[in-house]
Amino acid sequence: MGTMINLELIKTISISSPTKIVLLVIDGLGGLPNPQTGKTELETANTPNLDQLAAKGICGLIDPVSPGITPGSAPGHLALFGYDPISFNIGRGVLEAIGVDFDLQPGDVAARGNFCTVDERGLVTDRRAGRISTEKCTELCRLLDGLVLDEVKFFVCPAREHRFVVVFRGQGLVPDISDSDPQQIGIAPKVVTTLCPEADRMASIASQFIAQAKTTLAEHYPANMILLRGFSQRPQFPTMGEVYKLKPAAIASYPMYRGLAKLAGMEVLETGMNIEDEFITLRQNYTSYDFFFLHIKGTDSAGEDGDFDRKVRIIEQVDSALTELISIEPDVIVVTADHSAPALLKGHSWHPVPILLHSKWCRPDRVGEFSESACVLGGLGRFPATQIMPLAMANALKLTKFGA
Amino acid sequence: MGTMINLELIKTISISSPTKIVLLVIDGLGGLPNPQTGKTELETANTPNLDQLAAKGICGLIDPVSPGITPGSAPGHLALFGYDPISFNIGRGVLEAIGVDFDLQPGDVAARGNFCTVDERGLVTDRRAGRISTEKCTELCRLLDGLVLDEVKFFVCPAREHRFVVVFRGQGLVPDISDSDPQQIGIAPKVVTTLCPEADRMASIASQFIAQAKTTLAEHYPANMILLRGFSQRPQFPTMGEVYKLKPAAIASYPMYRGLAKLAGMEVLETGMNIEDEFITLRQNYTSYDFFFLHIKGTDSAGEDGDFDRKVRIIEQVDSALTELISIEPDVIVVTADHSAPALLKGHSWHPVPILLHSKWCRPDRVGEFSESACVLGGLGRFPATQIMPLAMANALKLTKFGA
Repeated sequence: MGTMINLELIKTISISSPTKIVLLVIDGLGGLPNPQTGKTELETANTPNLDQLAAKGICGLIDPVSPGITPGSAPGHLALFGYDPISFNIGRGVLEAIGVDFDLQPGDVAARGNFCTVDERGLVTDRRAGRISTEKCTELCRLLDGLVLDEVKFFVCPAREHRFVVVFRGQGLVPDISDSDPQQIGIAPKVVTTLCPEADRMASIASQFIAQAKTTLAEHYPANMILLRGFSQRPQFPTMGEVYKLKPAAIASYPMYRGLAKLAGMEVLETGMNIEDEFITLRQNYTSYDFFFLHIKGTDSAGEDGDFDRKVRIIEQVDSALTELISIEPDVIVVTADHSAPALLKGHSWHPVPILLHSKWCRPDRVGEFSESACVLGGLGRFPATQIMPLAMANALKLTKFGA
Repeated sequence: MGTMINLELIKTISISSPTKIVLLVIDGLGGLPNPQTGKTELETANTPNLDQLAAKGICGLIDPVSPGITPGSAPGHLALFGYDPISFNIGRGVLEAIGVDFDLQPGDVAARGNFCTVDERGLVTDRRAGRISTEKCTELCRLLDGLVLDEVKFFVCPAREHRFVVVFRGQGLVPDISDSDPQQIGIAPKVVTTLCPEADRMASIASQFIAQAKTTLAEHYPANMILLRGFSQRPQFPTMGEVYKLKPAAIASYPMYRGLAKLAGMEVLETGMNIEDEFITLRQNYTSYDFFFLHIKGTDSAGEDGDFDRKVRIIEQVDSALTELISIEPDVIVVTADHSAPALLKGHSWHPVPILLHSKWCRPDRVGEFSESACVLGGLGRFPATQIMPLAMANALKLTKFGA
């Protein structure tokens, strides 16, 4: 709620100006100490550039959602872009569509799908169809893709293993219908039902699609049925252009993050798969935008894999690549993450995330290195991630006075 | 508002698991420095166990309500249990009933009562009837207790000195009526009036009760009349079982804290009056619950009495008893308080309260002792007390990820 009001406030005081902001998100950056050394991944890594930025800038710790809450990638990034991740909720189907780089149009309804196994009585025996290969999934999706029923067109796109996305495109679709996925085995898939009168047609079409899929897949055991959940539409966000009067661009090698950036109204730039590629893309497009969201995926993957050393190495690679960024001299550089992902926990975690902000106008603190323990004593203190954007905007002199 | 939403959020991501959380509340723990030594009560006390927990764990400072606000025991504890103390308000009558260990049933209406003195014209000359003894109060309560009027039964229970509690039990009682206590002398007790149409019957019954009390007490000068205020019903809280999926138990030697724990849905365990008794009760019941609220009263009483040295001694006793707790090795230990109670101020105060959290998964900070001044530099920073429960739950690995 609070953040809704803040976006309105920011809108009234934000101004367009030539200054430039770079938000570098080192996904899953925050960690936990290695029991043998007492140092986190970030503290273990040799990071002269980050340390220099921290020394000249101001540091702190952010809570992406609130203390104790472990954020998924979507709420974590929404918060970084200044949107309250609790009020701005993204449906599961939309998130999956974004994750496979599907270009959702307004009005499209997306659902997350599983290929599953049903027995001769129609009861689910495996919700994941034995985790069929991504290749098999792709082949089966082709059988269902492109169907048209009752003037609604279906796009069926493979994700990983047994997972896929189905997008319903047609007039007047309302996504408020229940899941068919029963979330357990031994029972039949649920009948999709309407959750509001306006969604009657949607429920009917989804049911027809499921029936058609059952027929089509009958001979494809173990993937002889589908389960759908999280029917949802692309949410209507005030864009970063509207709120901050920015011309924002996103540089990310993974579809999920490009999709989240699109939801916030960013333009997505073509880039490569390496860390260096992203920084080159930044330099090449530097004059055309005034805000850059640059996303590094490897740290999160290493954290989720429980690979402490790999996470350290990737942080060091990012630090090397920073030379390029620092030489461009953006007016404001923010380095942080969407959540912590300690290798020790092999996943996302609730721990607050280190942040550094470097600008001519920040009030530097005494922090001399970029690390979790140093950030505890930083001048920014501990604060909600939704406040990063106003801070960055202020440091870029893009916010005028509030009140007379 | 924020906290209302958060409880809903927590409900959707909390899971039941075998890990155990102990919340040790050292009531009124926070203090102010003794002018002679420059050290607070906690800093003066010799606390090797607390210091060890602080060194291995993570520390910070909490605001029970918000900076500058001095909390009563009720809001202070509600915040510790995760309930926003401003939205979850407990009526004065209910609080008094809880304080005398009265087992309030749903539908009961409770009011706080004073015996008072009125002159021959019926004007209040002393709102406290010369602070009659608790014995006298008990004797007078017996005269009023057990009355039945219009199918409503009255329970009248003595508290301390001139104070008592009256509970109205019957069908369809609505507590929205005004106080009879005029809060000043020289005027008559106020006529109890209804604040909403549904409360008409309640207002009539309360007036009848007051009239009956006047008659009964006529010859008991100086306690020849009563004043009632804070008509209220037991609030409907989502229980800690519902929100956190915990099986919570409370260990407290004073009725008020047992009552507050009951409101939050905790089971109250029988225990003794000594600090050691409470820790023994914890050990004896350790396998049967996964959350323990352990309440130490003595520190608050010593603070309110302005007895700096006694408060120091009680903190040291708690520290000794902690050996027992530490040996049990709970997954998460939280040590904090519901508010500060500096001996120098002889009462509750607004100062933030030191907190330590010890768990395998906390991110330790550089704090090496448990004290107000060390906690200022702690890794938890300064945060609202309502966030303690999510943090404790996270550290017990009892919260799943929010969003994908």
